[in-house]
Amino acid sequence: MEDPRLRAVSLANTKSFTARLKSHLKETFFPDDPFRHFADQRPVRRAWSTISYFVPILQWMSNYSLTFFSYDVLAGITIASLAIPQGISYAKLAEIPPIIGLYCSFVPPLVYAVFGSSNNMAVGPVAAASLLIAATIQESVSPEKEPERYTYTVITAAFFTGLLQLTLGVFRLGIIVDFLARSTITGFMGGTALMIILQQFKGLLGLQHFTNKTDFVTVVQALFKYRSECRWQSVILAVAFLTILLLSKKLKDKFPKLFWVNAISPLFVVILGGLIAFLVDGANHGIPIVGDLKKGLNPITISHLQFKTPYVSVAIKAGLITGIIALAEGVAVGRSLALLKNEQIDGNKEMIAYGMMNIVGSFFSCYLTTGPFSKSAVNYHAGCKTPMSNAVHALCMMLVLLFLAPLFKYTPLVALSAIITVAMIGIIELHEIHHLFKVDKFDFCLCMSALLGVLFISMKAGLALSFLLSIIRALLYVARPMTCKLGNLPGTDLYRDIQQYPNSKSIPGILILQLGSPIYFANAGYLRERITRWVEAEENAIKEHSGKDLHYIIFDLSGVTTIDNSGIGMMTEVKRTLNKKGIKLALSNPSLKVVEKLSSAKLIDAVGKEWFFLSVGDAVEGCHFVLQEEAK
Amino acid sequence: MEDPRLRAVSLANTKSFTARLKSHLKETFFPDDPFRHFADQRPVRRAWSTISYFVPILQWMSNYSLTFFSYDVLAGITIASLAIPQGISYAKLAEIPPIIGLYCSFVPPLVYAVFGSSNNMAVGPVAAASLLIAATIQESVSPEKEPERYTYTVITAAFFTGLLQLTLGVFRLGIIVDFLARSTITGFMGGTALMIILQQFKGLLGLQHFTNKTDFVTVVQALFKYRSECRWQSVILAVAFLTILLLSKKLKDKFPKLFWVNAISPLFVVILGGLIAFLVDGANHGIPIVGDLKKGLNPITISHLQFKTPYVSVAIKAGLITGIIALAEGVAVGRSLALLKNEQIDGNKEMIAYGMMNIVGSFFSCYLTTGPFSKSAVNYHAGCKTPMSNAVHALCMMLVLLFLAPLFKYTPLVALSAIITVAMIGIIELHEIHHLFKVDKFDFCLCMSALLGVLFISMKAGLALSFLLSIIRALLYVARPMTCKLGNLPGTDLYRDIQQYPNSKSIPGILILQLGSPIYFANAGYLRERITRWVEAEENAIKEHSGKDLHYIIFDLSGVTTIDNSGIGMMTEVKRTLNKKGIKLALSNPSLKVVEKLSSAKLIDAVGKEWFFLSVGDAVEGCHFVLQEEAK
Repeated sequence: MEDPRLRAVSLANTKSFTARLKSHLKETFFPDDPFRHFADQRPVRRAWSTISYFVPILQWMSNYSLTFFSYDVLAGITIASLAIPQGISYAKLAEIPPIIGLYCSFVPPLVYAVFGSSNNMAVGPVAAASLLIAATIQESVSPEKEPERYTYTVITAAFFTGLLQLTLGVFRLGIIVDFLARSTITGFMGGTALMIILQQFKGLLGLQHFTNKTDFVTVVQALFKYRSECRWQSVILAVAFLTILLLSKKLKDKFPKLFWVNAISPLFVVILGGLIAFLVDGANHGIPIVGDLKKGLNPITISHLQFKTPYVSVAIKAGLITGIIALAEGVAVGRSLALLKNEQIDGNKEMIAYGMMNIVGSFFSCYLTTGPFSKSAVNYHAGCKTPMSNAVHALCMMLVLLFLAPLFKYTPLVALSAIITVAMIGIIELHEIHHLFKVDKFDFCLCMSALLGVLFISMKAGLALSFLLSIIRALLYVARPMTCKLGNLPGTDLYRDIQQYPNSKSIPGILILQLGSPIYFANAGYLRERITRWVEAEENAIKEHSGKDLHYIIFDLSGVTTIDNSGIGMMTEVKRTLNKKGIKLALSNPSLKVVEKLSSAKLIDAVGKEWFFLSVGDAVEGCHFVLQEEAK
Repeated sequence: MEDPRLRAVSLANTKSFTARLKSHLKETFFPDDPFRHFADQRPVRRAWSTISYFVPILQWMSNYSLTFFSYDVLAGITIASLAIPQGISYAKLAEIPPIIGLYCSFVPPLVYAVFGSSNNMAVGPVAAASLLIAATIQESVSPEKEPERYTYTVITAAFFTGLLQLTLGVFRLGIIVDFLARSTITGFMGGTALMIILQQFKGLLGLQHFTNKTDFVTVVQALFKYRSECRWQSVILAVAFLTILLLSKKLKDKFPKLFWVNAISPLFVVILGGLIAFLVDGANHGIPIVGDLKKGLNPITISHLQFKTPYVSVAIKAGLITGIIALAEGVAVGRSLALLKNEQIDGNKEMIAYGMMNIVGSFFSCYLTTGPFSKSAVNYHAGCKTPMSNAVHALCMMLVLLFLAPLFKYTPLVALSAIITVAMIGIIELHEIHHLFKVDKFDFCLCMSALLGVLFISMKAGLALSFLLSIIRALLYVARPMTCKLGNLPGTDLYRDIQQYPNSKSIPGILILQLGSPIYFANAGYLRERITRWVEAEENAIKEHSGKDLHYIIFDLSGVTTIDNSGIGMMTEVKRTLNKKGIKLALSNPSLKVVEKLSSAKLIDAVGKEWFFLSVGDAVEGCHFVLQEEAK
């Protein structure tokens, strides 16, 4: 019998601390290693590559062709047609003048065309963030009493959003967005969409009064309270518009080629509604209209940004919360569309683009913009090729602002409410929620806590609740790593979980445990208890079946990617306790990082180099070998 | 060549959701499975076992013998001699009347004797928590202006501490204490000890005025400001007392059997100092003394607890923070002493005992108590056998309170300061800090951030900073799991990290990646990027060396203990991207939980059952087998 301890485990401790720190920082902040493609280039070329990395227009412009341009023009016009009703509607949600919604589709898309790296994204205001901004800023400034200050505070919030996004992007802290679980976002969006739909009943029923609050109970109470204000003219129009919009949506689902019908249907509804309101003098006959829209491009607002307390603090608060939400939504949309074309997008680079867009936007009367799913999907289906479609979109909006804006004053509120309602129906991902329920009950709970929290407490509470739960879950995972007992699969030298493979055989006198990863301060205590329990259970089983005494414990460390100081302390204690019982400890397949830590803590010498094995099979052979040697 | 796919991976999805939830909750909250020993007993016996589980005195009393008692009496008397100077000193730190420090060594030890399960613990007030309580409660109530209310608020804080500890224990939330990393506690204790030592210069130098603040700069400024008040009488005594105390400590270190010299040296210093102060009328000659101590047992304070705002809120705040700290210290001390005797202690049970002790204590003029290291170590060395030593300790203190307390009024403050200083020197674990620096730089940072935070900002800030860092670290670990490329070790069928084993060989046309655990929402994005980068690097290497095209990717899932919904989404995307490139995906050794999730998400069918393998070796064989079949 050959001594398997000759097949040595690599126990060399080669990497210095700084080298390890460097690689660790790199994996944390540059997981995608964005500069890898031009690491070998010459200095001048590399400088150019780096600049064009941050300003993607320099990259794609050099290969831009007329064919591409024709596609982008088509896509740009299509999204502009969607941008008009969306802009007016979402500005209404944020309780700011509707024209600002149109401004948001002029400057930000231009900026995005320069800095954006996603070929599918179409930028503009979004519903959920609009409502959230309104809810946050209303805590300090009333949109009815101080409409100007309120509007400027909303715009200031966009400035801080941009600053946050730019900072996160530059310092490559996109990792923060990673911690907003997809389930949290699904639930948050679903809850917000339901809330927005409920609020639209004001417009759909033609009510004059309503509540500013955003929780289910208050909104339903308000609907009940003001139900007598309901106007039949609005209701009729509402039913008609909803039917048109839902039918065009059905049409798209059935015939994807006819997506453009769906894309222009909101504009169609707006124009139709405007015509009707104009013809019947709707404003005085139960069909409230948007009201005056000024002609002209975005006024400069840089000098109106609110940097004085208490407005600055509420703007910062609103800016940060909505910034994270907008980022999460934007990056997710960008990523899922890129995937369809098999492209990659760089989250951190996108953050820089969003940051620039919101900062510059806030100087020119724009509030928070990001990449909404509805607009971007239309852009994608319309065949956009590059961010140029955003530039075309911006030019179309410029023409609208310069010449057509006043015409939209006749837009009936009921048309906007119908458009928002149908858009929000699309945002509630019932299918995804059902999938979560089936696959992962905890993810389902995360999702529902966000959804119900948004509906019944407040938007921030729902988001915070779900976020906290997801963090606790991540921490609990670290606190309770898996351990399992391994047995030999008959006819192989493989050792597998005996629970998973009931036909695997225990080795008499040897207990083999697989330890989960990582071994950390947060779980060292738990692992000690758990190992003790495994040993006790094994000893009891031996007593009952009068089997062979327990001589060895083998820890399979294959899955342990790292161990910290408390973990090493725990291992030392466990070793001491086991030795007192006359049980020897063997370790199998420690990874590089674990070897480094064990060796600097001198635990390798304490355990003995000869008790480190390359595989569980080797370790078992080794234990048998020593037993035989001792028997001789 | 045999098709290795015949050796099937266990892909059965057997456990129901409730069964999984149950086992998950059990591992989270009952990792030690405390009732496992009497699960098979008959009902009456089981009820008795359960009661005596919560009231351990019922367990150990039945086997109690006279020999045990003689040991416990000796230990009890020894710790009582330590409790007098410690009680007075720590009460001074908390800025409450010194007599309360003595009360704390009467009622709480009695309660602990009934509910406590650690045979080595001796309970009483502790320095760090005393200072922390004072710092927190002074924010709202001034000890100079409203001494009575201040004292009652401190006692009320102990009530809330007890409530917290009891709740945590009953609901088995000991897991919260797990998240206070050992490094954080080391740093916090070290910083607090340094701070307390600095503050002792007031007593050592005989100053009349000083600051209440607990940050380095203010304390040093105060020392400088009041330096002219320094009295030579106090300084002489300080030097003498420090010498005695330090010598007795050295003696114990050299001759562990003489531990009792060290244990009674504080009492000796107190008596000697008292005699001197009495003889020379110290109070009027530069040796400030403690002052009046009333004779008599603890007055009942239950009706004085402060349940009115704003006092109740500051009491709750102080109670919660110090409660967690006291728990962490107590449980750690209990555990490390138990380890020396190879016993186990149950953290959750200990929490219940601490909770009872603090709640009952707060009804009888006691402030926060826990298991201080100094006292418990003396108890251990004095040969205590059961919690009975605490009862003896309490009886001794009863006699002191009834008959001797007034004698201690002559105790010079300088003696107390000397005792505290020497005790605090013992708490600064320089050796541990050096060990941290060598083994784990991040643990060292955690430790130093707590230490410097306590010194230069505030105790709470230091603790919070270090705690937050440790949470971020735990989260970052989850966010950036390890991945590595595996190669074949020549002459074996083992596959190991090619970075760790540079002699391992890549298999042409196959890329083998080991994925770290868990695959989660927080890292799904990262893993996707990282896998893409591995594939790209492999393709580039193939291009350069004009090697064989990449046909297969094998993910070794041995170390992946769980996967959530986002992780499954990531795997699906990666599979799709790879398939578009013409690369097949194979999975090796998925664990039970992963199989469950993959199967409920229908990913097993998407990948194909035949692409799941038991080991990497099997997977490689499987890929070769298919390649050959295709070639035929």
